[in-house]
Amino acid sequence: MTFLPENILPDWAQDYSPERQGALATTEERMRFAIELSQRNVEQGSGGPFGAAIFESETGRLVSLGVNRVVAANCSLAHAEMTAIAMAQERLGVYDLGGVGLANHELVTSCEPCAMCFGAIPWSGVKRVVCAATVEDAQAIGFDEGPKPGDWIEQLTQRGIKVVTEVLRPEAAAVLNLYKEKSGQIYNGRDLS
Amino acid sequence: MTFLPENILPDWAQDYSPERQGALATTEERMRFAIELSQRNVEQGSGGPFGAAIFESETGRLVSLGVNRVVAANCSLAHAEMTAIAMAQERLGVYDLGGVGLANHELVTSCEPCAMCFGAIPWSGVKRVVCAATVEDAQAIGFDEGPKPGDWIEQLTQRGIKVVTEVLRPEAAAVLNLYKEKSGQIYNGRDLS
Repeated sequence: MTFLPENILPDWAQDYSPERQGALATTEERMRFAIELSQRNVEQGSGGPFGAAIFESETGRLVSLGVNRVVAANCSLAHAEMTAIAMAQERLGVYDLGGVGLANHELVTSCEPCAMCFGAIPWSGVKRVVCAATVEDAQAIGFDEGPKPGDWIEQLTQRGIKVVTEVLRPEAAAVLNLYKEKSGQIYNGRDLS
Repeated sequence: MTFLPENILPDWAQDYSPERQGALATTEERMRFAIELSQRNVEQGSGGPFGAAIFESETGRLVSLGVNRVVAANCSLAHAEMTAIAMAQERLGVYDLGGVGLANHELVTSCEPCAMCFGAIPWSGVKRVVCAATVEDAQAIGFDEGPKPGDWIEQLTQRGIKVVTEVLRPEAAAVLNLYKEKSGQIYNGRDLS
């Protein structure tokens, strides 16, 4: 029994599967991979402009990937980070990627996590989070990142999770803008009361 | 394509399916239902001591239910609230339970949401959240509720989501204690660094 169906990812994601993808040594290479996922998702019209992946920190081996599938899956939980986390846990057969005997894992995401994905990170077991675009970049095209604590980086750091921000930020922000230009659906962009 | 597999819920949950369950008029009745789910989950050994359900606010019609399945599903996302939200959206075929033309929906949960479930609530589209046990009750048996903002109720209220706390709190706290007595697994109870 698994939390995610096999077809949560769009068909094109097979091109990026862990079986095909070689190890990526550097943080920038890993982020380029996550951003490419976000761009393919926009170009293929398969979801919002967000991509994420879980890597083994030391080896750079790809464990899982995710893209935003909120609209396609009719599910507000289907953010790129959530999908990547769930698929990594499914693949390894653990609910804690930071468990004893496992490699260190990291979440690489094309955009700073929203309030939900932020809250999911401590439970996931990843020990490092790398982000590209910022909350300001997402808000600039109309997305709402939710009620995330202002000191979110410190909150994760206190839990032993390293956070690196703004890696290839311009490249990731360009994908957000591409989405806006294509008039992509800004879901849940309800006015705050 | 759906975000959740059909078998995310344990078999016994069929006894509580929306098809069998009559409408529940009052908040207390709805909470009693959510607490009963949490208790069954403990008694059956199918997961952590947490239950949740989505109801139509005005009619009291049950739309979906969820219980904690983190260990069984090998997935740290599989909290009761997340499952209830995803299953309600799947059932209605929408990613936003607060969309135009839909009934008002509410999340009734046997325990105050953790940081992740809190962050998921604004995206879910529910317009009311009802909780029983508090974060202190969960922490008293060793669960960590995560880095939720101290003003979480105000944050949701500002987004037009009403929050009601401590409905049947003693009954829900009793289930948490039952879980502890049965030596249930306190997952992700990693020491904070």
